Amino acid sequence: MTDSRFQSDEWKIIETQFEPERGRDSESIFALGNGMMGQRANFEETYSGDTLPGTYVAGIYYPDKTVVGWWKNGYPEYFAKVPNAPSWSGIIVRIDGEELDLARCKVKSFRRELDMKEGVLTRTFTAMMPSGRIVDVRAKRFLSMSEPERAVIRYSMRITGGSGTAEITPWLSTDVHNEDANYDEKFWENESAIFLGTRAVVTAQTRKTAFVVATAMENTFYVNGKPAKSKPVLTVTDKTAHCSITSKYTDGDTLEVTKYVAVLSSFNHPVEGLAKKAMTVAGAAASEGFDAMLRDHIQVWAKKWEHGDIVIKGDIVAQQGIRFNIFQLNQTYTGDDPRLNIGPKGFTGEKYGGSTYWDTEAFVFPFYLSTADSHVARNLLLYRYKHLGKAIENAQKLGLTGGAALYPMVTMNGEECHNEWEITFEEIHRNGAIAYAIYNYIRHTGDQDYLTEYGLEVLIALSRFWAQRCNWSQEKNQYVILGVTGPNEYENNVHNNWYTNTLARWTLKYTSDSLAWLRSASEIKYNSVVARTHLDIQCELSLWKEIANNIYLPVHHDLGIFLQQDGFMDKVQQTVKDLDPAERPLNQHWSWDRILRSVFIKQADVLQGIYFFEDEFDEDTIRRNFDFYEPRCVHESSLSASIHSVLAARLHDTERAYTLYLRTARLDLDDYNMEVRDGLHITSMAGAWLAIVEGFGGMRIYNERVCFNPLIPAAWSSYSFIIRYRNNPLRVEVNGSAVNVVNLSQEAIPLEVYGERITLQPGEEKKFGKS
Amino acid sequence: MTDSRFQSDEWKIIETQFEPERGRDSESIFALGNGMMGQRANFEETYSGDTLPGTYVAGIYYPDKTVVGWWKNGYPEYFAKVPNAPSWSGIIVRIDGEELDLARCKVKSFRRELDMKEGVLTRTFTAMMPSGRIVDVRAKRFLSMSEPERAVIRYSMRITGGSGTAEITPWLSTDVHNEDANYDEKFWENESAIFLGTRAVVTAQTRKTAFVVATAMENTFYVNGKPAKSKPVLTVTDKTAHCSITSKYTDGDTLEVTKYVAVLSSFNHPVEGLAKKAMTVAGAAASEGFDAMLRDHIQVWAKKWEHGDIVIKGDIVAQQGIRFNIFQLNQTYTGDDPRLNIGPKGFTGEKYGGSTYWDTEAFVFPFYLSTADSHVARNLLLYRYKHLGKAIENAQKLGLTGGAALYPMVTMNGEECHNEWEITFEEIHRNGAIAYAIYNYIRHTGDQDYLTEYGLEVLIALSRFWAQRCNWSQEKNQYVILGVTGPNEYENNVHNNWYTNTLARWTLKYTSDSLAWLRSASEIKYNSVVARTHLDIQCELSLWKEIANNIYLPVHHDLGIFLQQDGFMDKVQQTVKDLDPAERPLNQHWSWDRILRSVFIKQADVLQGIYFFEDEFDEDTIRRNFDFYEPRCVHESSLSASIHSVLAARLHDTERAYTLYLRTARLDLDDYNMEVRDGLHITSMAGAWLAIVEGFGGMRIYNERVCFNPLIPAAWSSYSFIIRYRNNPLRVEVNGSAVNVVNLSQEAIPLEVYGERITLQPGEEKKFGKS
Repeated sequence: MTDSRFQSDEWKIIETQFEPERGRDSESIFALGNGMMGQRANFEETYSGDTLPGTYVAGIYYPDKTVVGWWKNGYPEYFAKVPNAPSWSGIIVRIDGEELDLARCKVKSFRRELDMKEGVLTRTFTAMMPSGRIVDVRAKRFLSMSEPERAVIRYSMRITGGSGTAEITPWLSTDVHNEDANYDEKFWENESAIFLGTRAVVTAQTRKTAFVVATAMENTFYVNGKPAKSKPVLTVTDKTAHCSITSKYTDGDTLEVTKYVAVLSSFNHPVEGLAKKAMTVAGAAASEGFDAMLRDHIQVWAKKWEHGDIVIKGDIVAQQGIRFNIFQLNQTYTGDDPRLNIGPKGFTGEKYGGSTYWDTEAFVFPFYLSTADSHVARNLLLYRYKHLGKAIENAQKLGLTGGAALYPMVTMNGEECHNEWEITFEEIHRNGAIAYAIYNYIRHTGDQDYLTEYGLEVLIALSRFWAQRCNWSQEKNQYVILGVTGPNEYENNVHNNWYTNTLARWTLKYTSDSLAWLRSASEIKYNSVVARTHLDIQCELSLWKEIANNIYLPVHHDLGIFLQQDGFMDKVQQTVKDLDPAERPLNQHWSWDRILRSVFIKQADVLQGIYFFEDEFDEDTIRRNFDFYEPRCVHESSLSASIHSVLAARLHDTERAYTLYLRTARLDLDDYNMEVRDGLHITSMAGAWLAIVEGFGGMRIYNERVCFNPLIPAAWSSYSFIIRYRNNPLRVEVNGSAVNVVNLSQEAIPLEVYGERITLQPGEEKKFGKS
Repeated sequence: MTDSRFQSDEWKIIETQFEPERGRDSESIFALGNGMMGQRANFEETYSGDTLPGTYVAGIYYPDKTVVGWWKNGYPEYFAKVPNAPSWSGIIVRIDGEELDLARCKVKSFRRELDMKEGVLTRTFTAMMPSGRIVDVRAKRFLSMSEPERAVIRYSMRITGGSGTAEITPWLSTDVHNEDANYDEKFWENESAIFLGTRAVVTAQTRKTAFVVATAMENTFYVNGKPAKSKPVLTVTDKTAHCSITSKYTDGDTLEVTKYVAVLSSFNHPVEGLAKKAMTVAGAAASEGFDAMLRDHIQVWAKKWEHGDIVIKGDIVAQQGIRFNIFQLNQTYTGDDPRLNIGPKGFTGEKYGGSTYWDTEAFVFPFYLSTADSHVARNLLLYRYKHLGKAIENAQKLGLTGGAALYPMVTMNGEECHNEWEITFEEIHRNGAIAYAIYNYIRHTGDQDYLTEYGLEVLIALSRFWAQRCNWSQEKNQYVILGVTGPNEYENNVHNNWYTNTLARWTLKYTSDSLAWLRSASEIKYNSVVARTHLDIQCELSLWKEIANNIYLPVHHDLGIFLQQDGFMDKVQQTVKDLDPAERPLNQHWSWDRILRSVFIKQADVLQGIYFFEDEFDEDTIRRNFDFYEPRCVHESSLSASIHSVLAARLHDTERAYTLYLRTARLDLDDYNMEVRDGLHITSMAGAWLAIVEGFGGMRIYNERVCFNPLIPAAWSSYSFIIRYRNNPLRVEVNGSAVNVVNLSQEAIPLEVYGERITLQPGEEKKFGKS
């Protein structure tokens, strides 16, 4: 079923061979993170082979000067990038003066094991050094989920084949660079290192943005299980700190170091005293000790799994895949800080700069909404709320006025970072996804207060955008939206993209409806929103209504489908089956103009709109559109297959839904796109979750009720998932014959399964026969 | 009428003030060239103020690695740039050890005079040096039109205010760089310098392309009109050569050097022995002497003016403007070498890399066609013929097959250099202009043999391109061309650009007609063309006919106009008058998406098509289109106003034609676009010529007959021009009441003036009353 490099296991990712040419791939796959920092699975000991060192700290970014072939008016000056941060994972090992380096050893065995249940990475290997010494290494590390400024590595090594002197040197360094740097610039400056007693710290500041990161360590050394007798020697340069212990060994001795690391940044602390504070935290970790820290860490993971696990029976590969996705999402974002968001590669690589894309609202948001406490999704919304001022500025740069907002395509601090006109300026549908997330949040959580306090301000700014961005076409006698790029980026600068126009219309209507609701709910709060936004009730509201009622939505009447954009039917009508497989993926074989004028679709576009507003369409309409567009979709975005899978399930096409699900769920594990070396596709991982919960499970929230219409892939004997509705957990288990729902909460939950409506009482369990 | 910095003069450009802040502007305006090399008007003596040193050698280019923000499949690896070549214009002057440098002197008078009749630049100034010495300098230079590898500078200097020692040092240097370098790379390598007797030479080779340029000098020194007694001292480093003479002077003495320069390149000579050959040429120049060289040089210019002058009476500013344009065009391209072409900035700056654009065929070609011997236009066509193989390769990169050709947007050697997808891949109308130039050449020259030998091969490859690049639209039941950018670059990726589709149809038809003509004229030659091009007479010809007869050409029936592209009428319909002047030019004030979705047009698009095929449309049609599109055109391309001027004249709107003419004719002299510092707009200079000859003069070639329909701007008392029809010169003079035509040739010329047809005998002169 899969030719994965990894052993099948329900809870673990296991690599059993040392494959230097896949080194970067594995560094991505086995990367660890805890929402506040991340670390690629770089080897601790020196490695002279190919590697992408990656240490990342949340919230820290460097404004890398824009590089462009041909400047267009309105381009941003920089692209914000989460820089490769001071390195803390290194431990130099010297045996009789010879440095341990797997690229120079005979590797006799090698195994890497990521325990997703516990969030622990273990690596073991046996290597023969050029000198003939044999070392058996066992390295275990985790980035604490309970104390997210801490990380620990336990590195133990048994030496056989003789006796002599071994030296173990944990180190820290600010001498790092980014591979992805537009002008080969250094991102860090003002570097320093100090040590105090047994602790050491390195500090560096990002250039231009002046974020300071202090990375400290304390180390404990053991020989054959007993504290080492020799004292460690600490040395520093301006960029590095080393803590070295030298020890005599005899054949069979085991030497071990535990490296307690603290990473503190000015994102969360005053700069003053940061270095000392980091040393204190590292010291506290060492005092607490590896085992105690691990226990607390595992407890947090246990909670995460309790809230959001999906269990699949009968298909271990699918089980492993979905858990890998859930694990990575939880490693990337924990939802405690509304200043943070989710980069497409999380903390696993440099690509996409660690910045925020529309992926968050369009794909990832539902995952956190259903698997975490509602404050997590709320924080994701607040992230955009806090950027509203910048989004208004951004719209002004594009000539819009009066408080209209265009959220950036890519951002770290609210400012636009992207510089491709057809995307930066034209992929405006991102505004729609941001409005939709507010709606989605409220229907899941019932937190209407969010609308009053924050949401409406955003919605009003977005509606102002749409009202100005459309124009009246004398020719069509309707409002049109010209010059956009839809979710299908294989079309640029099109007119009347159905998806974009649909979202514009919906946003205008939803904003008006929400205002009307608030007016009737609380005149005072309503007046406050109106005052805060300087809303012209007379003019603006009537204009929005006028536009929503008269916006042009292209359709093809004969085919009974929505038309992706004006002129779509002028294209040569082909399907993916007509393509020569040697020419795929198209974006690596066809010139851009050829892709643009072809009928082929990168990712769900009309279908993305149908996914969002499925309840507005009857099944025949959905089917006609799916049957027209899906065969034209090359799924060359990692965000594509999952949405199609959900819709295929909606159309009861379990087999197709399953095929599409597999494309998403093991995208990185099986490296379908041959690019896992650059990092994991974090944001598209949520798609696998969507494909199970919304796809196979058929979960929807309609009319204050949780609905399910489950089906089950033939390969599975059963599957179950836990979701939270208004913070109340609900467990759903589906097998070939029945659906079992358990209310795990203290409150009654209104339910609908296969159309049958009931209210499930606290603790109640109910079985529904498969329809 | 003008606030020009330059004095009005019929034949001269005169600058009378030293304005350091306009230094780069004047370096462009006073630049010299002779088709084989060019030189900005950099000062001879050291100048520490702002300057753009510019020395260019025709045919030499450096492939500057592409810089791009987001790579698209199909982009070229490099952009070819004519590099700043080894410098030869410098003469260091030291008086009593103090270096003459106008940035450090009190400039008491300053005058620069470009004599366009003779092609000579003279600069005189009086400066007080910090020491108090007064120097009166007179520097005169020209780049020989008769021996285009030679240039001469005569630099004389009178010193007053004391006596002492003066040192004059002509120098050469390969230590030059380009301001326009994507990666700050050096463009030159393998530099060397030698001297032999009184001659010196520097040699350098372009990196990657390995062009070698050898620049030599020989100098003669005079004191008070007599050969200097002291001997010059020659010194070289690896990159420079200096020839220094030291002389005692007393108050009022005049010191003079004549620097004879030879610039030879491996573009025209074997590399072996190039340096020595350059010294020989410099020596020969010195032997011939300044005056003799100047005499030959002026003779060539006299011929140029005899063939192509335009005389305007009563409007000295217009006279100066048109002569400046004609002068620059002749400085840039002499038409003797089919490997050369015309860069948008000629030899006057670095911008646009000196490469070839569609400007050549669409705008510049008619100028050379009418003012030079027909071999000049033929060489411009051969340039493209020689690149046919590369154009076919280029089309292959975009997925086209079977010998279809897409000529590059920008090129030096036939390979595409541009990297902006919406232009590189989509501005395919350039293919149409190349076909049109062949047609235009043949109707002017009657050289049908060109078709047989070369033209048809190109036309067939272009027709193959159009046949593949269009597609059948089931929806429209016609052929469509999707995803293009028209001449109006303020629209990107549009469908069915009327101009592009019109050119496609015309090319298919013209190719078929030409083949049919050849078949009837010579079966043997026809078969040879068919064999050379592997033409499938059955399939290809019938397909071309089918497409030409069924291609979609968008029109707006109610308005009675051709529609620029699909969906144009969905835009907000405004005219330029509606724009806030503070927001112009739009491309500096509006973001790109806003420009794209606006109705505003950068340069003639539909009107460019009407200009090309004017005889196919009645006057009402032309007027309706002109009245619709011209008010929407912001003329933000230097190529725009002239075409509109020709059409306005066609519609008898003399005043509008004149206003539009002025925008073109003095674009650089009056620096309308505030960018003359970067170089002159050489290719758009042909537009001023078009506006007079085709616009006011109404010249057309129809049915083997030269037609005129002259009108005259109110400000002019008369104007006259000379054009060549089938190499026969014809002089046309227009005043307020009559048109006088003189046949200056040895052959009868069929003529039509205001609809009256006659044949003008050799030497005959005929007067026509103004209609």
